[in-house]
Amino acid sequence: MLEPERIIRLEDDAVVVLDQRRLPDEEVDLVCRSAAEVAEAIRTLAVRGAPAIGIAAAYGYALAAQAGEDVHVAAATLAASRPTAVNLTWALEEMSRWDGKPAERARQIHAEEVDRCRVMSAYAATLLDPGTRALTHCNAGGLATGGYGTAVGALRAAWERGHLRHVLVDETRPLLQGARLTAWELEEAGIPHTVITDSAAGLMMAEGEVDVVLTGADRIAANGDAANKIGTYTLAVLASHHEIPFYVVAPSSTVDLATPTGAGIPIEERAGEEVTPRFAARNPAFDVTPAALITAIVTEHGVHRAPYAGSLAATGTA
Amino acid sequence: MLEPERIIRLEDDAVVVLDQRRLPDEEVDLVCRSAAEVAEAIRTLAVRGAPAIGIAAAYGYALAAQAGEDVHVAAATLAASRPTAVNLTWALEEMSRWDGKPAERARQIHAEEVDRCRVMSAYAATLLDPGTRALTHCNAGGLATGGYGTAVGALRAAWERGHLRHVLVDETRPLLQGARLTAWELEEAGIPHTVITDSAAGLMMAEGEVDVVLTGADRIAANGDAANKIGTYTLAVLASHHEIPFYVVAPSSTVDLATPTGAGIPIEERAGEEVTPRFAARNPAFDVTPAALITAIVTEHGVHRAPYAGSLAATGTA
Repeated sequence: MLEPERIIRLEDDAVVVLDQRRLPDEEVDLVCRSAAEVAEAIRTLAVRGAPAIGIAAAYGYALAAQAGEDVHVAAATLAASRPTAVNLTWALEEMSRWDGKPAERARQIHAEEVDRCRVMSAYAATLLDPGTRALTHCNAGGLATGGYGTAVGALRAAWERGHLRHVLVDETRPLLQGARLTAWELEEAGIPHTVITDSAAGLMMAEGEVDVVLTGADRIAANGDAANKIGTYTLAVLASHHEIPFYVVAPSSTVDLATPTGAGIPIEERAGEEVTPRFAARNPAFDVTPAALITAIVTEHGVHRAPYAGSLAATGTA
Repeated sequence: MLEPERIIRLEDDAVVVLDQRRLPDEEVDLVCRSAAEVAEAIRTLAVRGAPAIGIAAAYGYALAAQAGEDVHVAAATLAASRPTAVNLTWALEEMSRWDGKPAERARQIHAEEVDRCRVMSAYAATLLDPGTRALTHCNAGGLATGGYGTAVGALRAAWERGHLRHVLVDETRPLLQGARLTAWELEEAGIPHTVITDSAAGLMMAEGEVDVVLTGADRIAANGDAANKIGTYTLAVLASHHEIPFYVVAPSSTVDLATPTGAGIPIEERAGEEVTPRFAARNPAFDVTPAALITAIVTEHGVHRAPYAGSLAATGTA
């Protein structure tokens, strides 16, 4: 796995993140000296992935407290950095409820998220038969979660059990988190992998090369509808058409019981220039996969099947 | 429309093509001095699109004849340049059957393809109701056909009738024919358009922003299965899931009656480096959409509906 401190850590006067924009070409730390700089690192995707931005927000909050800043102002700045992942507001609420030393709780949140990933990955790996050829989208790996990964964690766990044969990695336009980050993590882990364009996933399924699809999530509504990186919904429709299991792997910190259905999840629209600088473009960063297209949701509490409402209610952190 | 001579033309000692690799940044002619250079222009995608590479091959054959080269060698070189589009072999067979001046037949083929595009586009436009918001993939425009376009031709015709409101353009990874070429053509034609990532098409359909999907084809089997740019099959599955009409617009020179079903269509695998130079990648350039997912196929003979076999048999050029 990726060392948690390598991805993100709190120092006396800074939050230090491995700058994910520079991977895989170079491993460079980005040093954030204030909560506002942490918010900027989240906004500009130096640190990304729902659990990881929750961890970054917790560290940013702790940094503000250490510097004697107004933590309410810091929390508001951090909360406004990105709209879709609920882990961000969840982590900030955890921090505001904490009576002890903020740094202590922030480091706990980080450690707990990594622990959750290990547990949910072990559950998810039980769903994969020996010889599995998996397909994943975006990066739901150690980089996205502060250490081990959700969907990629499941792949790590399945690989350790000897149940994983190969991983197809969607490149994940426009920012190529699959081709840059997931491929890098799988290479580090020694797991066989092949990058494809996002639009080749349908052909791969039609050719019988995909046994299972695994993705993470940025927010799961109370009914099981799951927001994740743009293109996830397309994969779920394709998986359903080909009768391939489609699993969402995410911690309870991603479950938002206050949002009844996916219709209530805010979808971030990013600048069209990320797609093309030359013509008018739309760039929604996420889409919502309806619960009906999800074979199972795996959290650190186990494997949840439809109907999700009751099972997730016992899991959620709201 | 794009002037046919601007896209490709035969001169006394050269075939001159508008270099599609350089668009939209600059309009540069590529001068091919032999059939082998024309084949290289096809192989490297300086000229691309099934009808356009048929036209290029015809001109390459005529150039070889003008230069006193062995036309059989020239034809073999041209035929081997790309495997999927049947227009290439169709055009070369037309040339080899011609008793007159080769240049005359090559220019006829070019003019006939543009005429076919205009006729099929008029048929296809009748399928679009006023206010239509269309989605298209890759470039099935004037660049791909030597002058007017198949799917983009249908959009031109619908726009002229006042039936088209807006076009969503899939960027079309890895080579961005949508974001570079289709957006450029629509801009020239004054048709409102927005580029999206290929994986955003699902969200756009779910949000009700797509009334119809139109694509071209590189080869249509006798039963109506249609090969086209990678990602087309995914769009067809999505369109079916959302009950959105999915139309294939292509000339009879793309219909291959000698190939019974899509399983017999050779799919070009291009270099993985086009996807990512850093990790192992697969790069299939096409996929096959089964006839069952196609609402109608439009050729210059009219609107064909399932079962396609009989209707296409009267249309095909084999």
